[in-house]
Amino acid sequence: MTHKSLLAVAISSCLLTACNSDTKTVEVVKEVEVIKEMSAIEVTQVKNVILMIGDGMGAQQVGLLEEYARRAPNSIYKSQGGKTALSKLGEMGQLGLSLNAPYGDNGSLVVDSACSATQLATGKASGSEMIGLDSDGNIVATILEKAKEKGKATGLVSDTRITHATPAAFAAHQPHRSLEAQIAEELIASNNVDVMLSGGARVFLPADISSNTQAQQAMQALGAPANVYKKSKRSDGRNLLLEAKEQHGYSLAFDNKQLSAAQGTKLLGLFANSGMSDAIAYTACRKDNSCTEPSLREMTLKALDILSKDEDGFFLMIEGGQIDWAGHLNDTGWMLHELLRFDEAVDAVYEWVKNREDTLVIVTADHETGSFGFSYSRNNLPEAQSLSGDGMQGRDYQPNFNFGALSHLDKLYAQSGTFYKMMDRVDASWNFDNSTGQQWADAINEYSAFKVTAEQASAVGVRENNDYYVAGHNYLSAAQFPKVNDFKEFYVYGDETHGNLIGRALAKEQNTVWGTGTHTAAPVPVYAFGPYGVTKQFSMMQHHVEIGQKMMTALLGDN
Amino acid sequence: MTHKSLLAVAISSCLLTACNSDTKTVEVVKEVEVIKEMSAIEVTQVKNVILMIGDGMGAQQVGLLEEYARRAPNSIYKSQGGKTALSKLGEMGQLGLSLNAPYGDNGSLVVDSACSATQLATGKASGSEMIGLDSDGNIVATILEKAKEKGKATGLVSDTRITHATPAAFAAHQPHRSLEAQIAEELIASNNVDVMLSGGARVFLPADISSNTQAQQAMQALGAPANVYKKSKRSDGRNLLLEAKEQHGYSLAFDNKQLSAAQGTKLLGLFANSGMSDAIAYTACRKDNSCTEPSLREMTLKALDILSKDEDGFFLMIEGGQIDWAGHLNDTGWMLHELLRFDEAVDAVYEWVKNREDTLVIVTADHETGSFGFSYSRNNLPEAQSLSGDGMQGRDYQPNFNFGALSHLDKLYAQSGTFYKMMDRVDASWNFDNSTGQQWADAINEYSAFKVTAEQASAVGVRENNDYYVAGHNYLSAAQFPKVNDFKEFYVYGDETHGNLIGRALAKEQNTVWGTGTHTAAPVPVYAFGPYGVTKQFSMMQHHVEIGQKMMTALLGDN
Repeated sequence: MTHKSLLAVAISSCLLTACNSDTKTVEVVKEVEVIKEMSAIEVTQVKNVILMIGDGMGAQQVGLLEEYARRAPNSIYKSQGGKTALSKLGEMGQLGLSLNAPYGDNGSLVVDSACSATQLATGKASGSEMIGLDSDGNIVATILEKAKEKGKATGLVSDTRITHATPAAFAAHQPHRSLEAQIAEELIASNNVDVMLSGGARVFLPADISSNTQAQQAMQALGAPANVYKKSKRSDGRNLLLEAKEQHGYSLAFDNKQLSAAQGTKLLGLFANSGMSDAIAYTACRKDNSCTEPSLREMTLKALDILSKDEDGFFLMIEGGQIDWAGHLNDTGWMLHELLRFDEAVDAVYEWVKNREDTLVIVTADHETGSFGFSYSRNNLPEAQSLSGDGMQGRDYQPNFNFGALSHLDKLYAQSGTFYKMMDRVDASWNFDNSTGQQWADAINEYSAFKVTAEQASAVGVRENNDYYVAGHNYLSAAQFPKVNDFKEFYVYGDETHGNLIGRALAKEQNTVWGTGTHTAAPVPVYAFGPYGVTKQFSMMQHHVEIGQKMMTALLGDN
Repeated sequence: MTHKSLLAVAISSCLLTACNSDTKTVEVVKEVEVIKEMSAIEVTQVKNVILMIGDGMGAQQVGLLEEYARRAPNSIYKSQGGKTALSKLGEMGQLGLSLNAPYGDNGSLVVDSACSATQLATGKASGSEMIGLDSDGNIVATILEKAKEKGKATGLVSDTRITHATPAAFAAHQPHRSLEAQIAEELIASNNVDVMLSGGARVFLPADISSNTQAQQAMQALGAPANVYKKSKRSDGRNLLLEAKEQHGYSLAFDNKQLSAAQGTKLLGLFANSGMSDAIAYTACRKDNSCTEPSLREMTLKALDILSKDEDGFFLMIEGGQIDWAGHLNDTGWMLHELLRFDEAVDAVYEWVKNREDTLVIVTADHETGSFGFSYSRNNLPEAQSLSGDGMQGRDYQPNFNFGALSHLDKLYAQSGTFYKMMDRVDASWNFDNSTGQQWADAINEYSAFKVTAEQASAVGVRENNDYYVAGHNYLSAAQFPKVNDFKEFYVYGDETHGNLIGRALAKEQNTVWGTGTHTAAPVPVYAFGPYGVTKQFSMMQHHVEIGQKMMTALLGDN
């Protein structure tokens, strides 16, 4: 029952029971108190804020999740009436949209994850690829840092790396997102983040970890499995994990069992050397109960468990970060699995919060990735069909185009490996110079329920000179690029673009289209759950900078 | 002041003035009555429903409008603080999202305008390309027809053709959207629609109108300009305009002056032989005050003026129909102008409704068209820049990619002709077999503020055999198709696809991407304005079938 209907009941019960008699003032007073209490209309402050970011999760991606949940013939949501946790949150709360570009008259049209997360975290305009800086490059305090300053507990959870753009922007300040080693130092040294759960151990480990047996033994002594500490991306000898434990009082965890057993109020869990497992691998290990990494849901529950012990309240950011990675690769099947993994975490939050009045939950995206859509085509046109209806006038039902079968949704779910897995299968060392259509078809057909011929896959391995060569550029210094024909300037990540070409090979079978290998500026959904006096301001077209401000005001008052 | 804050004031004034004394029951009663009245919480019925459909206007398209309005250096919204009418509506009301595919377990993934409008109009699942039928082909009553049955006034306004899929689905019942001649007959004969304002005269005119001087004189006598009755798409001798006037009591109007002067409660205005002018042409004629067609805004105002005289209330559907046409062609500049034209009509509705409590306004789309986005690229990378901020650590500001300049927004607005105009310039008879890159570049550069070279335009005229040839098919019976390389199956409209190739030639200059020449299944925005008891149910993830049901219940009670 919503506040609004409770209030209505209270009002009418007042009128019925008390208000026609002049002897019942006390009862009336009581009723009015009840009205006031129940209405909760002017509640504009909350004790806790939980911000969930589906990286790259535009309306387009949410649509994929919802169509799957509601209409896949074998939807895993069948037993829940096709209802996602996201849609439950939307029904109980408010839904809005948010623009997300680098803000202001000096901004630009499209945002990256660092700038977007910074704008959400600070409520201020930021620049492209910056971490925790305003658009002039100044260090600005984030909602997490301000919450900590007010004595609240704080946490960051992500299924990518803890130093990746989205979590980093809430607790670090760097001129560029690529400075992950420095971000790791900041995260540890600031003492601002009580709970950090993610991947990305490689920037916490000494440079020589892969050859230094003593350093390896130290990691073993901490309980870390070898795959977590297999290599370093640091250029110095620091072991930030040891520092975290010894100098800053963090408990450490490296797998799901350790996470589950972890005690204390400060916890650093790094469950992978770089990014955590993809969600297709997660779906598989969950089925045979062989997962060793915690799921996004499990990390979320642990974080809630620890942070909610703080009587002053908490700020927690949870990122479903690989929705974006699947989007960059134009991999619809993988993206679906990432959305499902994220929705599991949303469910955990929903269950924790649904009967509370003291917590604001915001679920949104930092931007859309890929310009994704299901679309109708001239491939495989529908057969004529006779319908019983009285309006058909003897005419068959035969639409002009292929509007896409619902069974596609099950087949997308059945994908058993990401496009990266397919690329690895063609050549584990990613040398695609002499790859053949047959190799690509075999790789695609091993993992996808949609099948392609060697001819259909023949364009996947085609390469060309990089027209946009830039010496020394992180991505554009490659002499050759996989050959995209249309909109080629929007495919920027070198050899990974073979994945985008796999997306093209599968497109007509899946009724899926993609506009880009990067992000778009489309407004993204904003789900807001909590006291109506707080959430009502989110049901409009807003900007992420404003969302940052609204969250800050709700959690901390006027700063 | 919102209902919620009024209510809060009422409650606290009650507590302050009356509730501590046992002698003031009467005052308390009064206060509670005021609370009840002011709260308006249980208002679930409205007298009028205004449904505005931006055809093809997904979140992506709304984002283009909002970015233009808020941040184009020379935005025409500057004097209004960058505020669109749409965003004002969102701030005062509720915002939600809606899935729009052919509904149910037998549906498909992507919707066309006919099915989508039918689902909105009837609250029932429909089939692809059907008009006013359920998914079994049965005739079902629409909200417009039910409103008429209850004595309300009704209207349909569109800047396409009155017989086009979207308006047709509210007042006709046909197995296929292409049956526009029959739809015209239904619209007239049913007497269900009091006000019809749009284009599309060609299916109301006798087959021989272009050669029959007597029939032409009859049209002149009605006041119609020659361009309105220049040709017919009927196969019989009926003049439905005469029938409308003589047998059904409609006033007729054929240009903006006649519209303005029109009297009476039944009005048929057909202002173009086929679709009305595009919005770039409208922007131009408005500037030098030379428009002869009424604008979408003017048609909206006239419809409101007539319909609001009915004491029983009204149902009015207003379509901005060419947003979709620009989307199909992947023409971003044109699409921006269509969004601006639509927002002018939204503004008219907003001004009419903003102080009313008896009207529900829904603004939504039937689907997204084109999988549009601004996107970041490897073209034209930004120069290094020195920033003053204390967080830059001596590092220059130089993002890895081109995130898109805000000046693009002004240049998109400056486009002076649609891609159709460019195609016409290359060859007015649309014979593109021997077109050259130079011809295409000249055509593009005449109308676009973004300039391309002959080489950049060289792919626009390339043609290939139609791999998806279907004899007798409305679109796929062409032996040759313009050559799209990637996602080619999603470009289905024959020679019009040269327009999509223009979009590709301009893409890297505009930072724009498109995924398809057809529609996508992305959830679309839903703006709801009216009494909160009615609008609150729209701030969630819903389906268009549910929107149809909600509108019907709000306007007509349980049917």
